[in-house]
Amino acid sequence: MTQAHRVVIVGGGFGGLYAAKELGKSAAQVTLIDKRNFHLFQPLLYQVATGTLSPADISSPLRGILSKSRNVQVLMDEVTGIDPEANQITLRERDQKIDYDSLIVATGVSHHYFGNDQWKPDAPGLKTIEDALEIRRRIFVAFEAAEKEPDPEQRKAWLTFVIVGGGPTGVELAGAIAELAFNTLKDDFRTIDTTEAKILLVEGLDRVLPPYPPELSEKAAQALARLGVTVQTKSLVSNIADHVVTIKQGDEVHEVPARTILWAAGVKASTMGKVLEQQAGATLDRVGRVMVEPDLSVPGYPNIFVVGDLANYMHQGDRPLPGVAPVAVQEGKFVAKLIKQRLAGAAAQAKFVYDDAGSLAVIGQNEAVVNMRSFKLSGPPAWFLWIFAHIYYLIEFDNKLIVTIQWMWNYFTRNRGARLITGESSLVQDYELATEQSPKSPVEV
Amino acid sequence: MTQAHRVVIVGGGFGGLYAAKELGKSAAQVTLIDKRNFHLFQPLLYQVATGTLSPADISSPLRGILSKSRNVQVLMDEVTGIDPEANQITLRERDQKIDYDSLIVATGVSHHYFGNDQWKPDAPGLKTIEDALEIRRRIFVAFEAAEKEPDPEQRKAWLTFVIVGGGPTGVELAGAIAELAFNTLKDDFRTIDTTEAKILLVEGLDRVLPPYPPELSEKAAQALARLGVTVQTKSLVSNIADHVVTIKQGDEVHEVPARTILWAAGVKASTMGKVLEQQAGATLDRVGRVMVEPDLSVPGYPNIFVVGDLANYMHQGDRPLPGVAPVAVQEGKFVAKLIKQRLAGAAAQAKFVYDDAGSLAVIGQNEAVVNMRSFKLSGPPAWFLWIFAHIYYLIEFDNKLIVTIQWMWNYFTRNRGARLITGESSLVQDYELATEQSPKSPVEV
Repeated sequence: MTQAHRVVIVGGGFGGLYAAKELGKSAAQVTLIDKRNFHLFQPLLYQVATGTLSPADISSPLRGILSKSRNVQVLMDEVTGIDPEANQITLRERDQKIDYDSLIVATGVSHHYFGNDQWKPDAPGLKTIEDALEIRRRIFVAFEAAEKEPDPEQRKAWLTFVIVGGGPTGVELAGAIAELAFNTLKDDFRTIDTTEAKILLVEGLDRVLPPYPPELSEKAAQALARLGVTVQTKSLVSNIADHVVTIKQGDEVHEVPARTILWAAGVKASTMGKVLEQQAGATLDRVGRVMVEPDLSVPGYPNIFVVGDLANYMHQGDRPLPGVAPVAVQEGKFVAKLIKQRLAGAAAQAKFVYDDAGSLAVIGQNEAVVNMRSFKLSGPPAWFLWIFAHIYYLIEFDNKLIVTIQWMWNYFTRNRGARLITGESSLVQDYELATEQSPKSPVEV
Repeated sequence: MTQAHRVVIVGGGFGGLYAAKELGKSAAQVTLIDKRNFHLFQPLLYQVATGTLSPADISSPLRGILSKSRNVQVLMDEVTGIDPEANQITLRERDQKIDYDSLIVATGVSHHYFGNDQWKPDAPGLKTIEDALEIRRRIFVAFEAAEKEPDPEQRKAWLTFVIVGGGPTGVELAGAIAELAFNTLKDDFRTIDTTEAKILLVEGLDRVLPPYPPELSEKAAQALARLGVTVQTKSLVSNIADHVVTIKQGDEVHEVPARTILWAAGVKASTMGKVLEQQAGATLDRVGRVMVEPDLSVPGYPNIFVVGDLANYMHQGDRPLPGVAPVAVQEGKFVAKLIKQRLAGAAAQAKFVYDDAGSLAVIGQNEAVVNMRSFKLSGPPAWFLWIFAHIYYLIEFDNKLIVTIQWMWNYFTRNRGARLITGESSLVQDYELATEQSPKSPVEV
């Protein structure tokens, strides 16, 4: 009896999970390794950060999703090393080694502060559930602190929210915070008027949502203005310190006192890219992503693949494929099929081709932009399309029903039930101590 | 113009919140102070701990609940002192002082380890959202660690769950963990068989649910046995150390290696009791609760009231009223009405009388016991009554709809969508370090 072909998948995000699902019930013996015990539906993470959804609404236990794929084992652990000559990976716990015949690396990206990592504690980014809960805590603590603040200048700083980066995440966060301040919370305080809040979205280029066509960027900017967001383009953040953001717009320099600063400006590859560079001689791009072959393998190692945000795929168009969920899903499925073809002795696919269905970004209730192959949309129709696209994706997991109802509920009541301030630094005083000493970085590298 | 009567309420649990609601739209000027920005529906906290519900499903922002009561201000802060002569309380932040004409103290209780506080890190109790998430993390990490554990003895310890205390919370936790091990998770692992888990419920008295009639305790014990829980009565925990629980049953001493130990054995009053003892000469009972007058005031201070779990009310029957939500709700409303009567110049009620509708405890799906004035129930009818009673209570908040649907969903699918392991010590290795060093106690005192 020959041993089954062993596939190790590192990372349970969109790329890794869809590869594992595709390999379920195949002849391969699959091990999926993730630090977390759940798959996270990252496109909705900003709704956890702004108090609309709960973490569990957008997460599914990996074991539950793969429960019926008896040939797939899930291990909750972290991969610390790859030995591409011995075909082994090393786990963090007990330095245990696991043999593979094929390896799929799908560990994604984290925040990038462009050499200013000291800004991290003051300006957390949004990648994990913990990030989202930390941002949620900061947003709602800011209103609570403002309510108690006797000094008008300080109060203004508590009510100022700066979002750095005008891509989809920045736009979503800014829109959601504006809805909180100008709508959800407006009757909840007695001393402050939450509609005096200032929500500032800072973007380096000349328009928000730079990857979109200019007319959709314009629609998005108009929608943001309607919601009460101040958009400042062609502006760079030159410093973040002591609750002040320094913003350069051409020759002008502004200092904006703000107690809540959120980072949505850039990503860099997870450390697994570095490991592949050192151990397998992989070439990394500027942000640490792995340059892959047309079949998504690492040059020189036809049995090691990189999929999802960690891969730089340059073989379609003149730019790398974007770091979005549909790319990761299709890449994960492609590699899984390729492995199955090899196992069946069939000719394996030689080149991955991304089928781009278009892109969507949401700004707020009834406000979104949609850029499809054949049409562009904005306003309520775009918003409904955005909702249904996300429910369609969630349909494969167990959360669809609840999330749909939660959304409808929120839609009709404009309520935000999940605006809990939890965790250790819940009180404003503790919170200030915690952020000033920054004992834990909200950022995973 | 005379100044409005100022009521300060400390604590936004059942007692404090219902007092605030009752005083809403009255002539009084009300300030509700809580460390948290939400009201917690504690009877369902065990469902957060065992991965069925999310924190937000059983919590409601206090500001949202009281949004329309324009005479009520919510402050997120902690009260550190009471000066009953000056009629002032002191807030933790900035040592700010607030004047009151009437004061309602409703700060509840926390865990009691009967002089063995060193057990806290190994055996967390269940009072706060953070407690629930910590317990959830431990339960699900235990299964993950067992899956990777090569040593059979160690694996057995990871799959052993000891719940100390056979009251309603202990019974609920034991039943829910049994359902996880024997049902929800049974197809999710490849190395371990989760149905080999041992769930041990330890109770000092001769039966579980001691406050209930013996025949219902017997029904509950039978239901627990059906679910796979081992009930050990007349047993005391004499030590918890190094992942071993020492249990004394008469003269016999057992040592049970267990990586998950949960504390549901006792409560003690929050520190506000001590403050009232020192500042207002209040008498405390054995667990620190404040002995109150028939109108729930503190002896000698007719304008200071204690309601809910922190109060020891001995003026009805031969025992203090139990620390359950309906008592707190009725006490909070009683005091609020009494204050309104005084304001109206009417004769104020002289004595609180608890209207006991009965009590319910749930053991698992379709398994519950109900003890009403006129009837007793067990099995599915009791379970449905339990569900509807809880929905009825939640009806006044915004979470009813979601929770109902979540329950129905779970009922038909036996799913546990919220079994996420989150927080800093998510990996087993980190987790072990964290618990061994116990940098943060999961217990608030």
